[in-house]
Amino acid sequence: MGRRIYCLTLSYDGTRYRGWQRLPNAETVQGRVEAILSEIFAQPIEIDGSGRTDAGVHARMQVVSFEAEQLPIKKVLSQLRSLLPADIGAINLRYAPERFHARLSATEKTYTYHIHNSASPDVFMRKYRVQIVQRLDVELMRQAAQRLCGTHDFIAFCSNKHYKKSSVRTIKHIKIEESDENLTISMCADGFLYNMARILVGTLLEIGLGKREIDSIDEIFASKRRETAGETAPAKGLCLTEVRYEHTDFR
Amino acid sequence: MGRRIYCLTLSYDGTRYRGWQRLPNAETVQGRVEAILSEIFAQPIEIDGSGRTDAGVHARMQVVSFEAEQLPIKKVLSQLRSLLPADIGAINLRYAPERFHARLSATEKTYTYHIHNSASPDVFMRKYRVQIVQRLDVELMRQAAQRLCGTHDFIAFCSNKHYKKSSVRTIKHIKIEESDENLTISMCADGFLYNMARILVGTLLEIGLGKREIDSIDEIFASKRRETAGETAPAKGLCLTEVRYEHTDFR
Repeated sequence: MGRRIYCLTLSYDGTRYRGWQRLPNAETVQGRVEAILSEIFAQPIEIDGSGRTDAGVHARMQVVSFEAEQLPIKKVLSQLRSLLPADIGAINLRYAPERFHARLSATEKTYTYHIHNSASPDVFMRKYRVQIVQRLDVELMRQAAQRLCGTHDFIAFCSNKHYKKSSVRTIKHIKIEESDENLTISMCADGFLYNMARILVGTLLEIGLGKREIDSIDEIFASKRRETAGETAPAKGLCLTEVRYEHTDFR
Repeated sequence: MGRRIYCLTLSYDGTRYRGWQRLPNAETVQGRVEAILSEIFAQPIEIDGSGRTDAGVHARMQVVSFEAEQLPIKKVLSQLRSLLPADIGAINLRYAPERFHARLSATEKTYTYHIHNSASPDVFMRKYRVQIVQRLDVELMRQAAQRLCGTHDFIAFCSNKHYKKSSVRTIKHIKIEESDENLTISMCADGFLYNMARILVGTLLEIGLGKREIDSIDEIFASKRRETAGETAPAKGLCLTEVRYEHTDFR
């Protein structure tokens, strides 16, 4: 039997996981999925995710690649679905081109942040939306979001103080949509630094709450210091919602 | 201070509760809310819900009435919100007319059943929707739903074999809506017998899966025997979504 590159799309409720990345003594999404794939293929399987979501962050679409012996796709997918826990879902599974790598081949990612802007709680979505009682000024937040878009050095929006590689990223767009009392902030970029999505949201929220001026965004970029940006917004509101690739015809 | 009748609207995630009704040694929604209201009013408070949801059934809108001393509404509501657990939400609180009773005054209730009709799991809604992999014939289910509507003796759709009161009820309408891979069945009636909403859904699902003929509905009504109807559908898919009253101007 030959070996193949597989492309697996997962969704997960990150509530009870210590994030994506495999860790020695903690439950992580990568660790759990690798254990199950290793069982199915009866050999150790290592997987690459498109990105490492933080502890408590969710994914509607996490793309994963791995190499393994060629087995029938339908059979592997149904085994996966029967073995995965209820909070990790296998959305689909495909053979990918030989050079495909879920992280290195990705050209664009979208994270969506969910806010329930109301004094009245939403019990059903309580693990996926952050409740903010004070009314947010959405128009101000939209103006601020425009200042964040484009190509910048986002080092001030990164929690890793020892980050050595280029911290220049391009935010393609930030969409803020309101529906009833729910607010969603979708951020599309060529890549995100450690905690960047949550610090972007934390900064926008401070503006929406009137605690920060829009002009402070220029100062954050100029300072390159983490302390000048907003707080890191809570993990549970964040969800990886889309990953794009140059050639996606195989998906 | 005088005494008032209060009308409280709750929503709850029923997953970890043994249903609505107070029980001596089990966590129930009524028991939990009564304990908190008793703390706020510093005296024992007993509440009446519009209906008793089963263990594991949810509510977007459960209407509750109780009598207590007159305290400022806003203060009571904010105390309630700070004391209730995350899976019970206080939507609103009002003073009600003297004769108002959440169950006895109710004229119409709507239960909604949520189905995810797909092989691909929905991890985020897994506690609120029942996944059915096999494709449902929705058109057949809609035809069957029409036969269930109207005024009938629903005793065959009741799990309580010793029910002595009238089991005649009027189903005003059953709406079955599809959106992506989700199916919702909304049932509006003047009242529901024990397990009736879940047995109605179980019967419709058997028809949608091709396991039962539409004509069997006439036989169920004629037999008046529980065994002739469909299985009781799982609790987690069911949600009490609306309760109506003749005079709702105070709400």
